[in-house]
Amino acid sequence: MVCVQYMILSPGIDRNENFAKLAGGYLFPEIGRRRNAYLEENPEMADRIISLGIGDTTMPIPPHILNGLVEGAKRLGTQEGYIGYGPEQGQAALREKIASVLYNDLIDPSEVYVSDGAKCDIMRVQQMFGPKVISAVQDPSYPVYVDTSVMMGQTGNQDPETMQYDNIVYMKCGPENGFFPDYANLPRADVVYLCSPNNPTGAAATKEQLTGIVKLCKERGSILVFDAAYAPFIRSKDVPKSIFEIEGAKDCAIEVNSFSKYAGFTGVRLGWTVVPAGLKYSDGSLVRDDFNRVMTTAFNGASCIVQAGGLACLDEEGQKEISELIDYYLENAKVLRDTFEELGYPVHGGVDAPYIFVELDGSSWDAFNMILEKAQVVTIPGAGFGPGGEGFLRLSAFAPRASILEACERLKVTMKKD
Amino acid sequence: MVCVQYMILSPGIDRNENFAKLAGGYLFPEIGRRRNAYLEENPEMADRIISLGIGDTTMPIPPHILNGLVEGAKRLGTQEGYIGYGPEQGQAALREKIASVLYNDLIDPSEVYVSDGAKCDIMRVQQMFGPKVISAVQDPSYPVYVDTSVMMGQTGNQDPETMQYDNIVYMKCGPENGFFPDYANLPRADVVYLCSPNNPTGAAATKEQLTGIVKLCKERGSILVFDAAYAPFIRSKDVPKSIFEIEGAKDCAIEVNSFSKYAGFTGVRLGWTVVPAGLKYSDGSLVRDDFNRVMTTAFNGASCIVQAGGLACLDEEGQKEISELIDYYLENAKVLRDTFEELGYPVHGGVDAPYIFVELDGSSWDAFNMILEKAQVVTIPGAGFGPGGEGFLRLSAFAPRASILEACERLKVTMKKD
Repeated sequence: MVCVQYMILSPGIDRNENFAKLAGGYLFPEIGRRRNAYLEENPEMADRIISLGIGDTTMPIPPHILNGLVEGAKRLGTQEGYIGYGPEQGQAALREKIASVLYNDLIDPSEVYVSDGAKCDIMRVQQMFGPKVISAVQDPSYPVYVDTSVMMGQTGNQDPETMQYDNIVYMKCGPENGFFPDYANLPRADVVYLCSPNNPTGAAATKEQLTGIVKLCKERGSILVFDAAYAPFIRSKDVPKSIFEIEGAKDCAIEVNSFSKYAGFTGVRLGWTVVPAGLKYSDGSLVRDDFNRVMTTAFNGASCIVQAGGLACLDEEGQKEISELIDYYLENAKVLRDTFEELGYPVHGGVDAPYIFVELDGSSWDAFNMILEKAQVVTIPGAGFGPGGEGFLRLSAFAPRASILEACERLKVTMKKD
Repeated sequence: MVCVQYMILSPGIDRNENFAKLAGGYLFPEIGRRRNAYLEENPEMADRIISLGIGDTTMPIPPHILNGLVEGAKRLGTQEGYIGYGPEQGQAALREKIASVLYNDLIDPSEVYVSDGAKCDIMRVQQMFGPKVISAVQDPSYPVYVDTSVMMGQTGNQDPETMQYDNIVYMKCGPENGFFPDYANLPRADVVYLCSPNNPTGAAATKEQLTGIVKLCKERGSILVFDAAYAPFIRSKDVPKSIFEIEGAKDCAIEVNSFSKYAGFTGVRLGWTVVPAGLKYSDGSLVRDDFNRVMTTAFNGASCIVQAGGLACLDEEGQKEISELIDYYLENAKVLRDTFEELGYPVHGGVDAPYIFVELDGSSWDAFNMILEKAQVVTIPGAGFGPGGEGFLRLSAFAPRASILEACERLKVTMKKD
């Protein structure tokens, strides 16, 4: 007897193979999913949950900055004040203020590209570099660098053992190297992602460290993508707030930045990227021209209302309000630090950064689950930021003071060492 | 004598080869550049310039919708009202309102992804499909479909003769086919971009036409990306406002859409994309899962202030305000239509669309330059939208009535046939 099997061909188009390589969901929704799953089983705990997980601002927007937003909206109701599409690169006044107030004119306004946030800009930077570059990331790191590299097709598959993707250079950052990558002793990459103050480790790179990596990137012909989204938390003297404070950086670096953590704009959406006018590809063409092409073709400018709020952040009164916001979150960070230090854990970050990174005795997902179940505090397991984060726990200082104090009381019980 | 030449190797990384394929700048900044160049040579004409070029809204935002935006901003100043990151997919209330008010519940709120605009969403859709798909576009068409296909690496080079890119299926749309593509007689594509009411031709596809292309896409296993950004301008009965009014569309279509032209939100930035829950790739995986991955990994939600404005658009009072705005622009379109018809030009569009598409006697860049120089009216040459637009001129109805009337007076002189 002959048995004939017919193959049923599914119609339609093939899935982008790069998406199939992505492991699981994006980290932060996964954290939310686990919290919700816990609450479904323990609905009586809903009121007890304290989130020190995703770094999400909780303080209201202060009056002067708020007024900038409100007026930015109101003027759209008048014939004189109404504006439609603005320049895709951002309003001239905002680009100028960013260059002067935040960079002391180390950069030119024409080098500033205003956007709806640093996360979106990282994707646009990847879009520009394309599928053929090799990227290097700190390990652990903010997951967007790796995930967008995978989505762009720069990588191979993920190794199920190491959890690392082929064709990405993982730059281990741990206590042994002060959480700063030893790029000199790692394979060369085309694009090096560096975040300082760091998410998740809270490490803020010194001038000396940044001088070293800029020199290395120039020698090795790498472009450094510097993520300075947490720069406003820097209070120490020898810690640069921008890569452009480092000599030679304009020859090799791009900086992505954000108003999110600066002014409580996480939901408001405003960021920017600086691409130096002289930065070049190996064929001599300007990187800025291609970034401009991405911004004009695949983006349509940040909301004009939000840009008005951005302008209010950058005058004297706005700066004062921001300084007070940052003080508040830095004090939260100190409380968290002190708590874990008293408990006897080695604690990193939390000084020039809103995150503290705690060295655990065991696995980070175990600690995450245990703290969620026993203390109803949501944290983020270091392993969620890459294999190098295993054994660590990230806690965010973005929370009301009362929540921080209450969480610390519970953690003192839950995390007590024997 | 031996002459040794040294090759100087430029350091740095290689430029993304896909960007080198892109011809010139993005169309709309190019139009602005030409206008500015003209004004530099003729500064005395600055006050006379009337822009009927880029489709940019000019009417102030009406009171109720404005109030939504203002209140959306104000509440961020209070502890109870402050919100940080929202869901990357958009606020639940807005997704629900979009599904019910704009789609009569033909779609589910979970299929709606709120964003900062349709242009940005087209890039995210391309990001999802990746470099290996073949795209089909109407010719002429909104330049973003082709440009983002090139940027993603889906295409070959541009043919300097035909101005067409290798590996894109150009679907000629002209008076001969009612500006609707004859996809049945063209090579199969993985992704078919269709815009109705059309930018730039102003053609609004009938139910019969859309039923035909949905059937074809299903038969050929193509995904239809339907751009409905101009849907609110539809007043005719047999013209669907959404592709999901067509039976079977949920098996093959994605719809990108926008509040820009709807509520004067071009500078405010709000759009959405509908990805049906059941839409699948050939391997059976869900398209929506990959789109969700793009939205969560490479985007961080539309501004919460702007989403509050979007909600105000969708209640009864907002809908009434929008209807009046659309009336105003449609009357502008009628004035433009009548003017060119009286002059003896075949005119297309402008009925269920804010654009009119005029058949010229000569080249479209020549007409653009002539009208700019002689009448100080900025238009857009059809050829800017692809080779199929040669010989046409697009005029936008987005302008104050007085400007439209003045422009028409001048055009009656400048464009008079001998």
